[in-house]
Amino acid sequence: MIEVNDNFRELPVSYLFSEVGKRIAAFKKENPGKDVIRMDIGDVTRPLFPSVIKAMHAAVDDLSSASSFHGYGPEQGYAFLRDAIARNDYAERGIEGIEASDIFVSDGAKSDLGNLGDIYSPECSVAVMNPSYPVYVDDSVIDGRAGTFVNGRWDSLTYLECGESGSFMPAVPREKVDVIFLCFPNNPTGEAISRNELKKWVDYAKNNGSLIIYDSAYEAFVRQPGIVRSIYEIEGASEVAIEVRSFSKTAGFTGLRCGYTVVPKCLKGVYSNGEEVSLNSLWNRRQTTKFNGCSYVAQRGASAIYTAEGMADVKRASDYYLGNAKIIKDAFEAIGFKAFGGVNSPYVWACSPEDVDSWELFNLFLGRFGFSTTPGSGFGSAGDGFVRMTGFNSRENTEKAMSRLVEGYK
Amino acid sequence: MIEVNDNFRELPVSYLFSEVGKRIAAFKKENPGKDVIRMDIGDVTRPLFPSVIKAMHAAVDDLSSASSFHGYGPEQGYAFLRDAIARNDYAERGIEGIEASDIFVSDGAKSDLGNLGDIYSPECSVAVMNPSYPVYVDDSVIDGRAGTFVNGRWDSLTYLECGESGSFMPAVPREKVDVIFLCFPNNPTGEAISRNELKKWVDYAKNNGSLIIYDSAYEAFVRQPGIVRSIYEIEGASEVAIEVRSFSKTAGFTGLRCGYTVVPKCLKGVYSNGEEVSLNSLWNRRQTTKFNGCSYVAQRGASAIYTAEGMADVKRASDYYLGNAKIIKDAFEAIGFKAFGGVNSPYVWACSPEDVDSWELFNLFLGRFGFSTTPGSGFGSAGDGFVRMTGFNSRENTEKAMSRLVEGYK
Repeated sequence: MIEVNDNFRELPVSYLFSEVGKRIAAFKKENPGKDVIRMDIGDVTRPLFPSVIKAMHAAVDDLSSASSFHGYGPEQGYAFLRDAIARNDYAERGIEGIEASDIFVSDGAKSDLGNLGDIYSPECSVAVMNPSYPVYVDDSVIDGRAGTFVNGRWDSLTYLECGESGSFMPAVPREKVDVIFLCFPNNPTGEAISRNELKKWVDYAKNNGSLIIYDSAYEAFVRQPGIVRSIYEIEGASEVAIEVRSFSKTAGFTGLRCGYTVVPKCLKGVYSNGEEVSLNSLWNRRQTTKFNGCSYVAQRGASAIYTAEGMADVKRASDYYLGNAKIIKDAFEAIGFKAFGGVNSPYVWACSPEDVDSWELFNLFLGRFGFSTTPGSGFGSAGDGFVRMTGFNSRENTEKAMSRLVEGYK
Repeated sequence: MIEVNDNFRELPVSYLFSEVGKRIAAFKKENPGKDVIRMDIGDVTRPLFPSVIKAMHAAVDDLSSASSFHGYGPEQGYAFLRDAIARNDYAERGIEGIEASDIFVSDGAKSDLGNLGDIYSPECSVAVMNPSYPVYVDDSVIDGRAGTFVNGRWDSLTYLECGESGSFMPAVPREKVDVIFLCFPNNPTGEAISRNELKKWVDYAKNNGSLIIYDSAYEAFVRQPGIVRSIYEIEGASEVAIEVRSFSKTAGFTGLRCGYTVVPKCLKGVYSNGEEVSLNSLWNRRQTTKFNGCSYVAQRGASAIYTAEGMADVKRASDYYLGNAKIIKDAFEAIGFKAFGGVNSPYVWACSPEDVDSWELFNLFLGRFGFSTTPGSGFGSAGDGFVRMTGFNSRENTEKAMSRLVEGYK
């Protein structure tokens, strides 16, 4: 038998979201009459925009005749999309220096977050926010950078604590860390970061020679001034940061699979012999070898988001989900819970005024009020006592679940 | 600056196909009047089948209303497609024991071939055919399993020589190798493998505890009896082999990105502590962590291939490309070259009766006859003296290029 990657042995078998799914299924089986409203859902529910639908029908038609057929596209994405991204998401928002050639279109942020581990050294130390989206940790485990799991922690990871006392903002570490995963607006806390706060991280990365992998999948939900949408708003960030983005939440593309990653050409790394190399060229080499581009149909759909009509649609859809998040936040505050996020993010992060653990809260809301949440402890030890809820269900379902809560809770 | 993966330093900067593309572009620039027919093309050119187009339009429409919307799909692919694959590509062809849960739908063979390296040990030794599709080698280099490049060879790889004297079939190695990449019908030689020949490899893998990664992306082109379409036609293969497939060539999906990989549940590996584990569970964990499923629209399109109409379309399209391959093969034989492949494969592999190297042949055909080829040396040292041509251009262009050759060559 072949020897396998030992790092898998240490990985917990069950992925948080599958575990939640299983428990909901078990609850439904035991309570066949009860309806369960999914407030834990990390997926969009609104249909694609008419402009996107139209662009995708046209793309499908392109593929139906030899003269307009598109086979293999560039692994980095089509110029029509890379150009639109560089112009609309960067240049027109006042961010200078991000060019189409810095942008790599992909099949989504989750793939890129995992695959980026191919380009930096296996010896790199890694920092993750606590709590955080579980894949940063799991990717690091699979790639052998997490060490051993001892007392609920991976002993080679640096955990950036994001608790209520620090307003859910991580503090820069005292020690040098090589690779730092930051996610803002944050999943799961729903809290976004100010330019002043993020500048501390860019400065830290410059001073320590670190790489920031900045997950801004939720940037379309930012509403307040002074809050960061792109890390490249911070001067000098293009020398220390890769930005990972997705059309999934912005435009409802979770089922279409299209996102992009920005690797500025001025971002450098170093081989063990001291030779410098641009990370853009390494990522390009990785993607041209282990990836074959994103679906033409999805890329045509994504490019429609950058029309005037598409941009208005993105605003409308994100406003809708933010409206749901507000309803959730208000309801939790009404019953005396503390609730965070939900202003520049579709996520709401709530805890009981008493000392109740996450799975107890999960059971309480499911059992008594028929709605599901995601236990905060699944995102890391600092998430214990919290549940995450999202604005991704319909307005009607969100209102129904929150009415049950406000009316039934005492 | 961050330390990067040292293995990239050893990788040749330019990927074979980009180099060919660059040289063709340079030739065109120097010869503005001349038309160049691409006989090197590794991409399909025929439009998608009407049944696929119809299914994709319907899928796009599904995404246009909340009631039929599909967000995140299962990372492993939708049941409608996994079931159709298990039934049509395996059970109905008399291959027993391949279940839907063994099948992982992906965004294409190239991604899976690269990403599979995550699940086996970094210490595994690797064998590749010589010549071979370059990514098996490049993936192994990136993952640190290839060693150092010395005199045109990676010193940790085992090269399975596939020269004319052995009818382009590799011989099983004398030593133990852990992971063996086999590709049949082969790219670049176009030669397919018989059941008797492949049985030797399954036996070798059983006796040596090896894993075969079997790339059968071109199985739809197999026409002769006794020739293998799936490695699971060989008894016991499901205990030693992963099969990687693609809809790209079968159904023209190169721009849509959809393929699948079969990891039978009875295929086991072992951790360094001696504990056994199924590779299916490891691949499932890898894919659920670093991948988020294949586009819903592409999966709906792929499922249309398994209707009666779709299957007839696959036969018709592959017949068309095989017809082109025959024209190429006949033309090269007519000018006194030796030509191989082209019977169970869209690829033709040709060499001069004299001692001419691959890039010289490339220059000759481009310069004198205005058609491009892929230099065989780009696929490995054993490819030198050969060029690869494909049946993927149109019938008209193929006939035109081959007429130029037959009429002009002396």
